[in-house]
Amino acid sequence: MRPYNTEIISVGTEILLGHITNTDARDVSEMLSRIGINVKYHTVVGDNPERLRACVEIAKSRADIIITTGGLGPTCDDLTKQILAESFGLKLIRDENELRWLHDYISNKRNFTPNNLSQAMLPEGCTVFHNQWGTAPGCAFQAEGVRVILLPGPPYECLPMFRACAVPYLKKLTGETLVSRQIRVFGMGESAVEALFRGEMEQMSNPTLATYAKEGEVMLRVTAKA
Amino acid sequence: MRPYNTEIISVGTEILLGHITNTDARDVSEMLSRIGINVKYHTVVGDNPERLRACVEIAKSRADIIITTGGLGPTCDDLTKQILAESFGLKLIRDENELRWLHDYISNKRNFTPNNLSQAMLPEGCTVFHNQWGTAPGCAFQAEGVRVILLPGPPYECLPMFRACAVPYLKKLTGETLVSRQIRVFGMGESAVEALFRGEMEQMSNPTLATYAKEGEVMLRVTAKA
Repeated sequence: MRPYNTEIISVGTEILLGHITNTDARDVSEMLSRIGINVKYHTVVGDNPERLRACVEIAKSRADIIITTGGLGPTCDDLTKQILAESFGLKLIRDENELRWLHDYISNKRNFTPNNLSQAMLPEGCTVFHNQWGTAPGCAFQAEGVRVILLPGPPYECLPMFRACAVPYLKKLTGETLVSRQIRVFGMGESAVEALFRGEMEQMSNPTLATYAKEGEVMLRVTAKA
Repeated sequence: MRPYNTEIISVGTEILLGHITNTDARDVSEMLSRIGINVKYHTVVGDNPERLRACVEIAKSRADIIITTGGLGPTCDDLTKQILAESFGLKLIRDENELRWLHDYISNKRNFTPNNLSQAMLPEGCTVFHNQWGTAPGCAFQAEGVRVILLPGPPYECLPMFRACAVPYLKKLTGETLVSRQIRVFGMGESAVEALFRGEMEQMSNPTLATYAKEGEVMLRVTAKA
């Protein structure tokens, strides 16, 4: 089976300024590992078209699945859809269902401004992920042999959309499950734990074994593919 | 003044599995922005020599400062020092001061195992950042026009070392300060806030203005260079 190596690209200058922590990447990674999809890279880039474009080119060269979080909002620094569509040679097309929904939803709460229109523009031929938790729809498409999933940035939109829409989409790709358990070791340093298991750590491929230091304890991580 | 574009590379499969959140990148980014250093990218890669090497090559091509977190421990999957030294054509040399300190420190608590030796190996000519909060020393070096800083991964080691050792090292580079303030806006959507400030957002370069959606409110971020 193909490994479906995945890269998560989180878009937002606020992450690079340290104003928020990239919890989306963590939470999405954890859910992906449960359905047997390997995450190989996380990338964070600001709201800058050239740098985002360059990051997408790098991701295309090393990943089978690209998941973006952030940059789907209605404002001029929300560039993810445009850049991703461009990078894969796709046009953005107005989705009439999303437009109608957005118009009704937003007009009920406040004025519908012209920049809200941009949220209903989606890459041609994509699977639309309707946003029940906010306004910006997500989507998934396949192009140039890569599967691309775009998710909104706010965690209270990103995670429920990932769970409800992206997980069923991705589960069709893989029957494999990755199971990972952590064993907490007290009273020994990381070196001593590793000395005990060095042979297994170097030679075993399934499950794999790794140690890492935490405050006052050592974690021994066992990860198996089934 | 040069912008000193920075990339933070966090090394650790545990981040890609979603076992831990990459708070190091957030905390280091926040401290960097306070001393006027721009963070342009965060990258997370697993404990894999080939992939780490490739990430370092990418970082060299787009950053003036590379800061790594993680992978300095004593175990065989701790590869950061080796790969970074190799990538910049530097040898790892045994630091006698660190070795003596490590030997005394570890022998007092538990057995000194051969893999502890590797923690005293440091890139030739580097500035050693002694670790008062754990065992693995960090360091800084300059090569091929890039400044490289290696920090341990555990946040209770990474952050105090960054503050005590890396900040004074970096402050010499830049007299510039970046100041960022967030204004919380209630009762308006992100689109409406943007419609109000669109001209400023597109045209101003110092300070810059950006909006982003949070739960129940919109943040307006004003960032100025002084």
